[in-house]
Amino acid sequence: MRIGDQDVRSVWWDDERQRLGLIDQRLLPHRLEQVYATTVDEAAHLITDMAVRGAPAIGATAAYAMVLGADDPERSAQQLCAARPTARDLFTAVDHMLVDPSLTRAHAFVEGIVDACAAIGRHGRTLLADIAAERGRLHVLTHCHAGALATVDHGTALAPLHALAREPLGNGIRPHVFVSETRPRFQGAITAWELSAAGIDHTVVVDNAAPHLIARGEIDVVITGADRVVANGDAANKIGTYVRALAAHAHGIPFYIALPATTYDPDTANGAAIAIEERSPNEVLDIAGHRPYAAGTQARNPAFDVTPAALITGYITERGVVGHPADAGRRRPVTTHGEAY
Amino acid sequence: MRIGDQDVRSVWWDDERQRLGLIDQRLLPHRLEQVYATTVDEAAHLITDMAVRGAPAIGATAAYAMVLGADDPERSAQQLCAARPTARDLFTAVDHMLVDPSLTRAHAFVEGIVDACAAIGRHGRTLLADIAAERGRLHVLTHCHAGALATVDHGTALAPLHALAREPLGNGIRPHVFVSETRPRFQGAITAWELSAAGIDHTVVVDNAAPHLIARGEIDVVITGADRVVANGDAANKIGTYVRALAAHAHGIPFYIALPATTYDPDTANGAAIAIEERSPNEVLDIAGHRPYAAGTQARNPAFDVTPAALITGYITERGVVGHPADAGRRRPVTTHGEAY
Repeated sequence: MRIGDQDVRSVWWDDERQRLGLIDQRLLPHRLEQVYATTVDEAAHLITDMAVRGAPAIGATAAYAMVLGADDPERSAQQLCAARPTARDLFTAVDHMLVDPSLTRAHAFVEGIVDACAAIGRHGRTLLADIAAERGRLHVLTHCHAGALATVDHGTALAPLHALAREPLGNGIRPHVFVSETRPRFQGAITAWELSAAGIDHTVVVDNAAPHLIARGEIDVVITGADRVVANGDAANKIGTYVRALAAHAHGIPFYIALPATTYDPDTANGAAIAIEERSPNEVLDIAGHRPYAAGTQARNPAFDVTPAALITGYITERGVVGHPADAGRRRPVTTHGEAY
Repeated sequence: MRIGDQDVRSVWWDDERQRLGLIDQRLLPHRLEQVYATTVDEAAHLITDMAVRGAPAIGATAAYAMVLGADDPERSAQQLCAARPTARDLFTAVDHMLVDPSLTRAHAFVEGIVDACAAIGRHGRTLLADIAAERGRLHVLTHCHAGALATVDHGTALAPLHALAREPLGNGIRPHVFVSETRPRFQGAITAWELSAAGIDHTVVVDNAAPHLIARGEIDVVITGADRVVANGDAANKIGTYVRALAAHAHGIPFYIALPATTYDPDTANGAAIAIEERSPNEVLDIAGHRPYAAGTQARNPAFDVTPAALITGYITERGVVGHPADAGRRRPVTTHGEAY
């Protein structure tokens, strides 16, 4: 992605000092800083602590972390897989690197992610062009952060928007993105920051307001990323994704999941079998350092939810827009949005 | 409501100093303080600034404010009606007081609200007893704050829970309340405070998590208040109510609106005709004094949404649990939840 006059990635290998580099997403949007790991311990901590967010970026981090832990690949793999339980790409990356934890293999894995996201951008741009032509407007609702920062480069859900920013539509329709703030971690602020940096118009709303905008006819398409899409097409993604899909379905608005093949998990039958990470109640109760609750107040903090395949219009993949993620390999494109099933 | 060893109301008339008194909800849960108005100007500002929240409590405030502004009732009425556009009770109270802006008439109006909420509590308790008996558990999801503070006393959505706290079920089942934090204003903190004061078990979740809990079978019934219920049964309430109803409907969980007759508006045909207040973007962008967005970031802040009648299992009113709010006068009880329509 372009930041100022530089092409930047969110995860990289620092050749000079033989270490893993990350843009520290904990500090955004206030400070753009880099953070480094020289051991698997440090890399696992950066994943758990959400310095790196987004399933593909976590996968890239794990691939380079396996290089750092090449002296004991099995132990490194265990440690990394325990860092966060939901993101499929983490396990895909670790499995890939267990074969040969070399830097060459890690680079190949990461370039694969970047290429996949660039292709998601191209296919998604075509889809959005069709929707804009049909609706005479292009109001896109997204959730959480599935941009370049979350995927090394380009993004998944935001890749089509970055592609549109680079190559605008001939009819003059410009996208406007509605950004859900995404409690409890406010990843919407990262999305807003990235859209701002790319010059893409956007409006922030609280999570409660997103379905209302759908109900009032203000949204043309919903696109999110995913942490894991399983064999039957069910998708685990940031908590709150499910209701956006439910509302989109209730109002006949198409709902797409954008994902690279590394996020697809054919070995899990359906969404009910996906482990949902429950994070610390403090993420709910402590709000930007302020705690509006009495001492002893209990909270629950499920970090993800499952969107059933029946609510998903289609999947934007590196092979095209398809009706089922397994179809990505067979290049069966969905020609009309809303008719994927 | 009991706070410590005192019976307290959230809105009252201070006889000694001839002024309107309120519990200042802007300071809760950190400080329990009173605030007073001696003019209509001051009362209207307290409504706009959300020192008083909840449609019935706003109605009571307006009734006493009309006494303060009795020298020019028409002007007072206009000023109060402009304070917040969505809450039906505000207009009901002003219309009631325009006939005769006397303290006697205001007291009668407010006692009517208190009696109605006590009755909602009794009828709702019976409904919850049935649900607990059927499900062997009583997990209640609510949204925003519809407790005693919001209604002078007892509450609407929380009234059945207060009634259960005073008179527990014979089968030993205790209610557990899941409290949505309710962005952007975090009214869930007020609900948690009130439940805590009443000794009712509860767990706070972010708004995104509430539909997930419904989907995972962790909720037995959803109850919210309303700011306005119109002729066809559509209900305007705090932004986020709609998706909870949508999720409850999708998973066969009953969804009830608790309201006194003062919240029912037979003159508005349906939800599409309800004015939805859009509040300041700063409520979205400024989070407890912290602003995680770049300067110039836009936000939208619709404060309410509309839940269609088709998603509402029934209405808990002072006359019983009914299938349509207009039925409250005809005492047509709904005998089995989930079969109101």
